[in-house]
Amino acid sequence: MPRLVDHEVRKAQLLAATWRVVRARGVEGTTTRAIADEAGCSLSVLAHFLGGKDDILVAAQQAVYEQIVERAFRIGGDRSGLAALRAALDAVLPIDEERAADAHVNVAFAGAALSHPLLAESRRASHRAIRVHLRTCLREARELDELRVGVTDEAVIDDFIILVEGSSLLSLVDGWAEEGRAERLTRLADNFVSQLRHTR
Amino acid sequence: MPRLVDHEVRKAQLLAATWRVVRARGVEGTTTRAIADEAGCSLSVLAHFLGGKDDILVAAQQAVYEQIVERAFRIGGDRSGLAALRAALDAVLPIDEERAADAHVNVAFAGAALSHPLLAESRRASHRAIRVHLRTCLREARELDELRVGVTDEAVIDDFIILVEGSSLLSLVDGWAEEGRAERLTRLADNFVSQLRHTR
Repeated sequence: MPRLVDHEVRKAQLLAATWRVVRARGVEGTTTRAIADEAGCSLSVLAHFLGGKDDILVAAQQAVYEQIVERAFRIGGDRSGLAALRAALDAVLPIDEERAADAHVNVAFAGAALSHPLLAESRRASHRAIRVHLRTCLREARELDELRVGVTDEAVIDDFIILVEGSSLLSLVDGWAEEGRAERLTRLADNFVSQLRHTR
Repeated sequence: MPRLVDHEVRKAQLLAATWRVVRARGVEGTTTRAIADEAGCSLSVLAHFLGGKDDILVAAQQAVYEQIVERAFRIGGDRSGLAALRAALDAVLPIDEERAADAHVNVAFAGAALSHPLLAESRRASHRAIRVHLRTCLREARELDELRVGVTDEAVIDDFIILVEGSSLLSLVDGWAEEGRAERLTRLADNFVSQLRHTR
């Protein structure tokens, strides 16, 4: 079905254009006009593929989450337990340019979600999906007897999201120097996993 | 000098009006017109006290940080070392309505700072000021022999900011139920401090 594929490819291009506009102007500063210009299409083509402004913002936020989750749990695909959790952290922290670009979009949407109920609801749905993946990693880790006593799933999952969102914010806004950033983030991820691990 | 006092009071009222607009509309959705309406003044009065839109946004972000820092290190004033650090966490996490309102403004500005160089620079300056306060707490904790071996100031300070920004974001956006939020945040703060503490 080539037409269906074309449709999906075109939608992905338009969402990528939306991310570029969000990175440059912030979420509330993003207009359909700016997205259409960035994508090199008309307003009516944009509306045909993605709908109105709220639909576009929700779709763009959801797509960046899907991309992040895909990267996190595909990379973790041949691993399990704490190794999968560690790989997931590596995949979502803004360690290189590609991951920093996704994190940038994610943090911009996070701030905007506070005053935008549709974005907030979509964000909660994405967080629920991430929690399911993380629960799988922790179940495996428990089966492999990797976890120290007293570790509870919900607390680890909260800590995981806090680490990812907090360190993304800190490293992007405080502008940790490019050459030092990967090292600082890697240390944070290593500490996170080693604090969960059984010390026998 | 009553006129000077009046001037400062009026500025504080206008900044508080700006926070309310930012909470309702997000940073990029905030207009000088909306702030003037919220404050019940004219655009020229607003401009007289706070300048143009960029000046207003930077001043509003800086003021919310000053309010948070003041609360954190005043509450910690009669304490020192890890007790002061613990009190600072209590003062900045969105545990009650007042602190949640400040955290909401803070997170909204964080997202916006990524596409707004003036806000990003002002934010970095505020973070530097917070780091100075935290270094003082850690110096005291070291003098009181409270810290476990291997704790380094810069890592603790990064972790502190990550915890505060990440958990604010998570609890505000995921909408941790009001009655459970204070408890979850208190547990996070307790764990943070207990992991720093000497275990003799």
